[in-house]
Amino acid sequence: MKIGVYPGSFDPFTVGHHDVLMHAVSLFDQVYVSVLRNVAKNPVFSTQERVDLIRRMVEEEQLSSVKVTYFDGLLVDHCREIGAKYIIRGLRAVTDFEYEFQIGAINRHLSSEVHTVYFMASPEHSFLSSSSVREIGAYGGSIDGLVPECMKNTVAERLRRQ
Amino acid sequence: MKIGVYPGSFDPFTVGHHDVLMHAVSLFDQVYVSVLRNVAKNPVFSTQERVDLIRRMVEEEQLSSVKVTYFDGLLVDHCREIGAKYIIRGLRAVTDFEYEFQIGAINRHLSSEVHTVYFMASPEHSFLSSSSVREIGAYGGSIDGLVPECMKNTVAERLRRQ
Amino acid sequence: MKIGVYPGSFDPFTVGHHDVLMHAVSLFDQVYVSVLRNVAKNPVFSTQERVDLIRRMVEEEQLSSVKVTYFDGLLVDHCREIGAKYIIRGLRAVTDFEYEFQIGAINRHLSSEVHTVYFMASPEHSFLSSSSVREIGAYGGSIDGLVPECMKNTVAERLRRQ
Amino acid sequence: MKIGVYPGSFDPFTVGHHDVLMHAVSLFDQVYVSVLRNVAKNPVFSTQERVDLIRRMVEEEQLSSVKVTYFDGLLVDHCREIGAKYIIRGLRAVTDFEYEFQIGAINRHLSSEVHTVYFMASPEHSFLSSSSVREIGAYGGSIDGLVPECMKNTVAERLRRQ
Amino acid sequence: MKIGVYPGSFDPFTVGHHDVLMHAVSLFDQVYVSVLRNVAKNPVFSTQERVDLIRRMVEEEQLSSVKVTYFDGLLVDHCREIGAKYIIRGLRAVTDFEYEFQIGAINRHLSSEVHTVYFMASPEHSFLSSSSVREIGAYGGSIDGLVPECMKNTVAERLRRQ
Amino acid sequence: MKIGVYPGSFDPFTVGHHDVLMHAVSLFDQVYVSVLRNVAKNPVFSTQERVDLIRRMVEEEQLSSVKVTYFDGLLVDHCREIGAKYIIRGLRAVTDFEYEFQIGAINRHLSSEVHTVYFMASPEHSFLSSSSVREIGAYGGSIDGLVPECMKNTVAERLRRQ
Repeated sequence: MKIGVYPGSFDPFTVGHHDVLMHAVSLFDQVYVSVLRNVAKNPVFSTQERVDLIRRMVEEEQLSSVKVTYFDGLLVDHCREIGAKYIIRGLRAVTDFEYEFQIGAINRHLSSEVHTVYFMASPEHSFLSSSSVREIGAYGGSIDGLVPECMKNTVAERLRRQ
Repeated sequence: MKIGVYPGSFDPFTVGHHDVLMHAVSLFDQVYVSVLRNVAKNPVFSTQERVDLIRRMVEEEQLSSVKVTYFDGLLVDHCREIGAKYIIRGLRAVTDFEYEFQIGAINRHLSSEVHTVYFMASPEHSFLSSSSVREIGAYGGSIDGLVPECMKNTVAERLRRQ
Repeated sequence: MKIGVYPGSFDPFTVGHHDVLMHAVSLFDQVYVSVLRNVAKNPVFSTQERVDLIRRMVEEEQLSSVKVTYFDGLLVDHCREIGAKYIIRGLRAVTDFEYEFQIGAINRHLSSEVHTVYFMASPEHSFLSSSSVREIGAYGGSIDGLVPECMKNTVAERLRRQ
Repeated sequence: MKIGVYPGSFDPFTVGHHDVLMHAVSLFDQVYVSVLRNVAKNPVFSTQERVDLIRRMVEEEQLSSVKVTYFDGLLVDHCREIGAKYIIRGLRAVTDFEYEFQIGAINRHLSSEVHTVYFMASPEHSFLSSSSVREIGAYGGSIDGLVPECMKNTVAERLRRQ
Repeated sequence: MKIGVYPGSFDPFTVGHHDVLMHAVSLFDQVYVSVLRNVAKNPVFSTQERVDLIRRMVEEEQLSSVKVTYFDGLLVDHCREIGAKYIIRGLRAVTDFEYEFQIGAINRHLSSEVHTVYFMASPEHSFLSSSSVREIGAYGGSIDGLVPECMKNTVAERLRRQ
Repeated sequence: MKIGVYPGSFDPFTVGHHDVLMHAVSLFDQVYVSVLRNVAKNPVFSTQERVDLIRRMVEEEQLSSVKVTYFDGLLVDHCREIGAKYIIRGLRAVTDFEYEFQIGAINRHLSSEVHTVYFMASPEHSFLSSSSVREIGAYGGSIDGLVPECMKNTVAERLRRQ
């Protein structure tokens, strides 16, 4: 069984992340969406909120091969625990591609058994980032079409009273 | 009447910003230089100081089509308030071009009526950024030729006692 | 009167070029779409074919401020002849941005009176180039949504029998 | 069964291509290495030579899930013929990442059923390209460690008498 | 006598920095490794710890032309004090090349007598950064082969109890 | 004695190349400017013309440590012949930085004894390339300030009658 892990901050999950997840679902037998619990980074959404939002979406879309969890520490250790041999990462035209290259090489250095697999988000989502969503939402701008439909209201409301 | 808004932190305004402003003045009937009042970013120059420095320069150079103001919140809301249909942005060879692409796409998403227009700074100013000016000035290095002549002394003095 | 010139090979004109043209039409009183007659480059569509295709589109969309022409030699000489003070260029997320920077600086060196104005194509067209259209068309792939609707059939047919 | 196709010019196949192939072998049930027969590009090694070199390597390394073939025309048509749902592409730190982004978006436009999967070559091979190998070999420089061991002598000899 | 200064945060010194230092040693009669004492940046290793680690390495490797020191303020002032006419900087495939271009132009602006000389780290170290080492070390991952052998244990232990 | 070689097409030599040469002269005891005789590339200026133009400039500017020559084949072989341990390359903000990285890594692979040293051209020359000069000159545009003063007339005349 091919198990992949899709790690990220997902603060919040966007339609660009959704693009990447759909690619992964088509390829892997099981996909873990793993929310990074990074104490240093001070996210707007708590780890639990982020896990809950994604979980609800996974249920609503009946993605039966997807599990949602969180982790801290080294990603390769998380892979070992859940038995994943593949790390899934999204690339955007405007992504920090070189940053991804560094992370990929570091993970290969730490574990030669884990492969990193990259997918590209759709061009029309290439401008999108979680931080854009946070900024627009904080000022009451519309986040329609930026996050998955099913979590739109919850995210918008949460960002306004942040 | 074609109205453009040139938004930025301008902490402080540099000769590179001046390049872009001169392009904009040649094209638009009215140009707003709009200082971003960003509480999070903790600027060295206060919003009022930045507005005053640019205003004095505009008077000295008799740029009669230029108004100086400030804003917070979403840029597209500011555009609506002042009736601007065009956002003006500068690109440098060493700019974060991809960052500009994101911002431009987000603003188009938020308002399809507002167009973003880009100009390039002169090659000899392509290395220049406000943060460079701040760092050089803080250590007493010469900022000659980095900021407009008329504000040179005020900026240098302010950076030394920062 | 603000006159802009939008130069390019347009071999063929794509929906990405159309994005940029619409931005330009919103800003300038008159826009010249100027097809580069480059003997060296050996285009698939002849200069006359390219001019005709764009002209027909301009008529169909009733873009009354747009004129279509061609030129060879230096762009700044062409600007002088038609009285244009502004060069219009499109930027894509995947464009050769540094190439544009070089061209812009060269044109400024050759004529300080001409300003280059940049617009960005829509994110969903950022992957698009004339060479992609040519390659897809040559192998009989669908170019639906890649070139303006009104020239779709003519371009597709022409590429198949190229 | 997950079938992936790894398309390329492979003129010649390098250790960087080998890196990517090994990633693909670990993930897919069947991998086609598909040599692009591009009449326009005028390769040094003929289509048959390239297929033969890779085939011999595949046999020697007993990569039982790998088939070697060639194609011309649109890649998505080739995918359909062999029943592949996944395109495999390598990314190098020094790759033309934006070129890959264009190709990926075009292929998605042409067929929504085909996913492109990217792997990164090892950092120590990130400087490597087929054209470097050709140039070094043509002047009699050593290509040790640049192409797979088993084809080293054949490639070196062929490049010298090119 | 040609004197070069190799400035950096070195928090901690990595094998990539070592690559660059070896290039510099081959070219200059004397090389200063100058640790930047940046109060703002809040390093993990204190200025004294960083100087000591590098000094011990220099002794162990008997690099008789290398001196280790620290500085704060403008780099060009530090150059003047120690009589260095050359600034040494490393470039990685994944480096912020444009950041280096800015710094280089600023330093040339501040002192026309000082030249910046760039070397590239080995491809196999191009993924490496001090921040990667810090993150891996903090979670108890192996930093073998990421920092010079002689300081490996000290650095690893220090990062674990950080 | 530190000997460096500055290789290039120099078709023609520009003020940007001059920037880099001046950096090299300040650092090396002897500098070879080595014109690449590349039969494939079909230059506008013949190898002899390029050597002569640079030689005359070197004499006029009394650069006594500079020799002008040409080479073909592998650069590392040329280095060995003339006893150079250092390859000199210029980087521009708009240069193909990744191309330089490839070349540098290839040369290191071919000879571990040769170091590549990079300098940056001045920001105001960062837009400049030999191909720009050729194109401007071919259409009779002014190349003032783009090539060294002493060869300006010869180059301009040659490009016009090309």
